Amino acid sequence: MSLLVTGSFGIDTVETPFGKRLDVIGGSAVYFGFAASFFGPVRIVGAVGEDCPKDLLNVFQGRNVNTAGLEIRQGSKTFRWHGSYLKDMNEAQTVKVDLNVLAERAPKIPPEFLDSQYVFLANTHPLLQLETLATLKSVKLAVADTMNLYIQTERRQLEKLLGKIDGLVLNDGEARLLTGQKNLILAARETLKMGPKFVVIKKGEHGCLLVSDHDIFALPAFPTEKVVDPTGAGDSFAGGMMGYLATQENLTSDILKRALAFGTVVASFTISDFSLAGLAAATRQQIDDRWEKFKSAMSF
Amino acid sequence: MSLLVTGSFGIDTVETPFGKRLDVIGGSAVYFGFAASFFGPVRIVGAVGEDCPKDLLNVFQGRNVNTAGLEIRQGSKTFRWHGSYLKDMNEAQTVKVDLNVLAERAPKIPPEFLDSQYVFLANTHPLLQLETLATLKSVKLAVADTMNLYIQTERRQLEKLLGKIDGLVLNDGEARLLTGQKNLILAARETLKMGPKFVVIKKGEHGCLLVSDHDIFALPAFPTEKVVDPTGAGDSFAGGMMGYLATQENLTSDILKRALAFGTVVASFTISDFSLAGLAAATRQQIDDRWEKFKSAMSF
Repeated sequence: MSLLVTGSFGIDTVETPFGKRLDVIGGSAVYFGFAASFFGPVRIVGAVGEDCPKDLLNVFQGRNVNTAGLEIRQGSKTFRWHGSYLKDMNEAQTVKVDLNVLAERAPKIPPEFLDSQYVFLANTHPLLQLETLATLKSVKLAVADTMNLYIQTERRQLEKLLGKIDGLVLNDGEARLLTGQKNLILAARETLKMGPKFVVIKKGEHGCLLVSDHDIFALPAFPTEKVVDPTGAGDSFAGGMMGYLATQENLTSDILKRALAFGTVVASFTISDFSLAGLAAATRQQIDDRWEKFKSAMSF
Repeated sequence: MSLLVTGSFGIDTVETPFGKRLDVIGGSAVYFGFAASFFGPVRIVGAVGEDCPKDLLNVFQGRNVNTAGLEIRQGSKTFRWHGSYLKDMNEAQTVKVDLNVLAERAPKIPPEFLDSQYVFLANTHPLLQLETLATLKSVKLAVADTMNLYIQTERRQLEKLLGKIDGLVLNDGEARLLTGQKNLILAARETLKMGPKFVVIKKGEHGCLLVSDHDIFALPAFPTEKVVDPTGAGDSFAGGMMGYLATQENLTSDILKRALAFGTVVASFTISDFSLAGLAAATRQQIDDRWEKFKSAMSF
């Protein structure tokens, strides 16, 4: 397997009912990469500014993650996000966002990454996602995420992207915005018409929904009373899902379901503590144990 | 088995994005009784006014439902509810409610119903629920529903009721209101401390959650794109659940899970059309087929 992710490295400030954390590790590529690395090697492509703290630069030390694609850009600043879950633990309110380096050119993909077969295009400008995808020549499975901003402002480019990917991962509000359909199954079906073979709608505490031409599959979130910080749950979910898929030869219905369950379980570790602490404290054995528990709980 | 339900018979006016229906059949005991009757005989206790339309009086004709406990009260009026789902398909907005006969004394339980072993106390004043429960002498499993109004205004009586029942079925907003806990698992745990052995939290389109001292079990809703009228979904869910439980000797963890899945499936028929039409068009065979499909979809 060769799983590549391109997305953000970020410095987050997060407020939840359990406290406030200033300038902690964040970013979609960071959560995704961390989550996926439990399953096999991960290749990271991203950019930070020259102000990037050491903790963030070294976040993957000792992990099965190749950071050859992480560019430290002189004269630029690292992406910063300040979010609050004080009002609603299921939806972050952005207090402040500084795109900084993310608003510049796409980071370069190192030559040794060009043969990547599994690709996750974490949320960024669809033009950059298209550019990254076009650079890779051996893609077997391409999955992307997106967000409200690009659905509203970059619709044409986004639709072009949807025509070139295998799977789209997005949250419920985004699926409704993209399609104008309130019912999520209808929203997913509309999305399928735009190109992807499968759509995964993330519903936070309410779990996820997979729709393809052959399947409709819903999973609840892993039931947990320890929800401290939901930041990164969606990217960890995608990381667990893609990390597992990259270990599999084929993309069958059953394998996709299992991948969704791995994503669900990995995300449950992420939300148990602030920033990366919950995921960093987890082991592959704990993930597998929780997955088995989830699987057995879901059978009746 | 001998399953008794006490709750409302109602005349509903309902508005959804799919249309408006005036003066149609409704009421918690009606949906519950209809749903449970797919599994075995049901005994109904309730009251209507002298204005009760024939369609509502004869709603159980040809069904396995004993309506000896349905009182047609002279000088009284039937319960009426006018609700709208135009704003949110997952939460009814009450446009108008006339309690009428429901605000009077509790309906009398016929002597031949007094040996009922399975009891569902659909949502009504907790004093009436307590009174009904106290009248029954052979209860093996008592489950109740409640609502915001009684949580806010009749807390002491409700807590007394919670000390006497085996299970409580309520929706997510009610669970949060009852306990002050936003996390639903914590809310369920707090509720368990008040007495019941298990709590089922209904989350509408997001499925349900069961919490007991031994189990945490979440199920998504049955994935369907045909949601026409959510009225009665919760009562149908409870009817499917209790209908199945009343056919079982013991209340094991697995049987409770299966019961929740039956409730989920039965509710999916209810919401597929206005009023009782979706449920009335269903057969036990269709329910079993959909249950098997759901069970197999949920295993991975």
